[in-house]
Amino acid sequence: MNIALLGFGTIGSGVYELINLNKGKFSGNFTDMESRKASPVITKVLERDTTKDLGDTVGKIVTHPSEILEDESIGLVIALMGGMDFEYEMIKECLKAGKHVVTANKAVISEYFEELLTLAEENGVVLRYEASVGGGIPIIGSLKEEMKINRVTEIKGILNGTTNFILSKMTEEGADFGETLALAQSIGFAEADPTADVEGYDVSRKLSILSSMAYESIIRDEDVYKRGITDVRAADIEMIGSMGYVVKYLGHSILEHKNVYTTVEPVLFKEASIMSNVNSEFNIISITGDIIGELQFYGKGAGKDATANAVVGDVLYILNIVKEQNYPKPLRLNRKLNKIGTDIFKGKYYLRANLDDKEMLDTVLTAVETVAARKTVIVNDNQVYVVTSVIAANDFNTMAEKLKETVPELFYARIYE
Amino acid sequence: MNIALLGFGTIGSGVYELINLNKGKFSGNFTDMESRKASPVITKVLERDTTKDLGDTVGKIVTHPSEILEDESIGLVIALMGGMDFEYEMIKECLKAGKHVVTANKAVISEYFEELLTLAEENGVVLRYEASVGGGIPIIGSLKEEMKINRVTEIKGILNGTTNFILSKMTEEGADFGETLALAQSIGFAEADPTADVEGYDVSRKLSILSSMAYESIIRDEDVYKRGITDVRAADIEMIGSMGYVVKYLGHSILEHKNVYTTVEPVLFKEASIMSNVNSEFNIISITGDIIGELQFYGKGAGKDATANAVVGDVLYILNIVKEQNYPKPLRLNRKLNKIGTDIFKGKYYLRANLDDKEMLDTVLTAVETVAARKTVIVNDNQVYVVTSVIAANDFNTMAEKLKETVPELFYARIYE
Repeated sequence: MNIALLGFGTIGSGVYELINLNKGKFSGNFTDMESRKASPVITKVLERDTTKDLGDTVGKIVTHPSEILEDESIGLVIALMGGMDFEYEMIKECLKAGKHVVTANKAVISEYFEELLTLAEENGVVLRYEASVGGGIPIIGSLKEEMKINRVTEIKGILNGTTNFILSKMTEEGADFGETLALAQSIGFAEADPTADVEGYDVSRKLSILSSMAYESIIRDEDVYKRGITDVRAADIEMIGSMGYVVKYLGHSILEHKNVYTTVEPVLFKEASIMSNVNSEFNIISITGDIIGELQFYGKGAGKDATANAVVGDVLYILNIVKEQNYPKPLRLNRKLNKIGTDIFKGKYYLRANLDDKEMLDTVLTAVETVAARKTVIVNDNQVYVVTSVIAANDFNTMAEKLKETVPELFYARIYE
Repeated sequence: MNIALLGFGTIGSGVYELINLNKGKFSGNFTDMESRKASPVITKVLERDTTKDLGDTVGKIVTHPSEILEDESIGLVIALMGGMDFEYEMIKECLKAGKHVVTANKAVISEYFEELLTLAEENGVVLRYEASVGGGIPIIGSLKEEMKINRVTEIKGILNGTTNFILSKMTEEGADFGETLALAQSIGFAEADPTADVEGYDVSRKLSILSSMAYESIIRDEDVYKRGITDVRAADIEMIGSMGYVVKYLGHSILEHKNVYTTVEPVLFKEASIMSNVNSEFNIISITGDIIGELQFYGKGAGKDATANAVVGDVLYILNIVKEQNYPKPLRLNRKLNKIGTDIFKGKYYLRANLDDKEMLDTVLTAVETVAARKTVIVNDNQVYVVTSVIAANDFNTMAEKLKETVPELFYARIYE
């Protein structure tokens, strides 16, 4: 079976190296298959940027989709262009053309999850998307396995390499968000427009894919409460550290009865905890099932080789099952569940506000007191730090968002219990 | 396909509940299969202890192996008796009789790994053993998956729930080994004879299974350097804690060129690390591949439900592939590798010795100085604590074992870097 690759970016070239250039043990697996069928190889690469250096190792570059869609010899398409509309159209057309699809595109999968799965089933092909969540961490496959026996009721994790790099670096250096973002951008760990990462859209998409699978109901990106990390300052890192905590960017969803609760927000973990010690581009994902209890999966959430590894794992999976036409049971995504925000989350809250004057201090303390008992208050130069008693996330978030209208320089985060 | 269960102990009853009593989502999977074949069920249970309360839910109890071996309706046998000789014989006979086998028995698998895999292949059946390592952690399957693409070069982890419970409890309470072992025994977390757990045989067997698979060469239990945790005292916990470390019981193997290095020993990890925060009966297993980098898997290393989950996962796997007779590529275990002890491991060492007199202090310090520079020495009542510069594990271990002949009250551990 021939393979087409859409997009020859970082991950695309990594996949090409594994499949066509025999890096890793991949070729060994194929040698074993040769006796049964022709050895699979990437025969066409769709890359619209013809100015890009593609090396002399790349086979046939094509620039028009029809050269892939209408090529009967291509049975599997690896979609790694990124972006939204064009990749979505291509995946759809490939499935319709009876071609298996492997993608790493979390935006497309989270947005069109049910439609694409249905399309794959209708056309008797397989859609795989292991690399769309957690980079090289084998979470999609593992979640499916555990779901054969378990009812999964909770998913949480550090799901974005860029923001985890930024927060780890800020913690290590005691640095501010702005300068650390600039550093991350300069070394290619953050994009020129970092919004999707630092405002939580990327985490939210990954959380929506995992939660939809686990709870068997479409949890849309829009259903997820999101708060970014752009307000974290060196002063927060210092105070949080002195309290024995570390700030992490957490995606978290819980299924209780027929209700799904989801959140993407900065959360403080005890220094001595597993979450606090997941650093740099590493990710961790925790799933909880009624039989297995909690399982956690840790690995590289980004990077060429690790992500290519996940993509090629999907390719091998498809090549292996194609022969028998023994396709896995399709995911069920039609359970009726209520998506009701962050009601279930609660904890102590940390808040830092920059003060213009004495009056502003009163404003902050009064606002906090309307929702929670203050446990600790530290006033230091022109800043106030508050730690509250345990309260509902909803209540604190609402109060803090309102407070921001009059006290703009503010950061707050729940302390994980 | 009918299933027989060997042994109705803790895990056995957990498996019975999942398969026959429809606990969890397992029955849902079976409903889906019913259209294609008869729904699988445990029809016979071999349990030689007839005084045991088996409940009125258990189907047919049999006491003689032939009732299972000669029953043509039984296609799959779940071997959960524990122990060595009888379970080994039963697994062998079942494979020879053309029955698939699922087991959790790490002793049998690590001792007869190659023989049993060969026997399965020769008889056209499948042998699965996910629950033999890491309880509910899906490590065997994940390792096999990653090996399709990666050369795995390192495995390390906290692989024993009993000793991790004991060390976690000692750390939490500042308690001694003896009293904590007694506590663990009283609540069923340690066996009456705890030797296999606290002297490292259990970890060594699990490490030998994972290492044999990963390095494609039989690593025998006997090839693994082992040192127990029985010498840890409350005084060590206190000193190690004040230094910012936590003691953990680590199994670790590395493949470098054609050499395999293995060790099972107490190791000190920084308080702020992932390993230090794996507590109680939880286990963690790290594997490193040349493409994927490091992956870590965390979950319950023991317990009825989690282990039964892993066993039933194997059962589902076999039921799924049996129809197509599309058996996975057999493991290769015949690479020629040198098993050369602990030569590759190095680090600073912590040592505590109880002193009878001033002369003994000189003995200890002189002995340490023969192999390493002393970095820190604390003498406190009748104890000395030493932290060394970085040295080879072999050198320190040899020195310390010799020192124990004259200074019997001694504990030492490498500081993980």
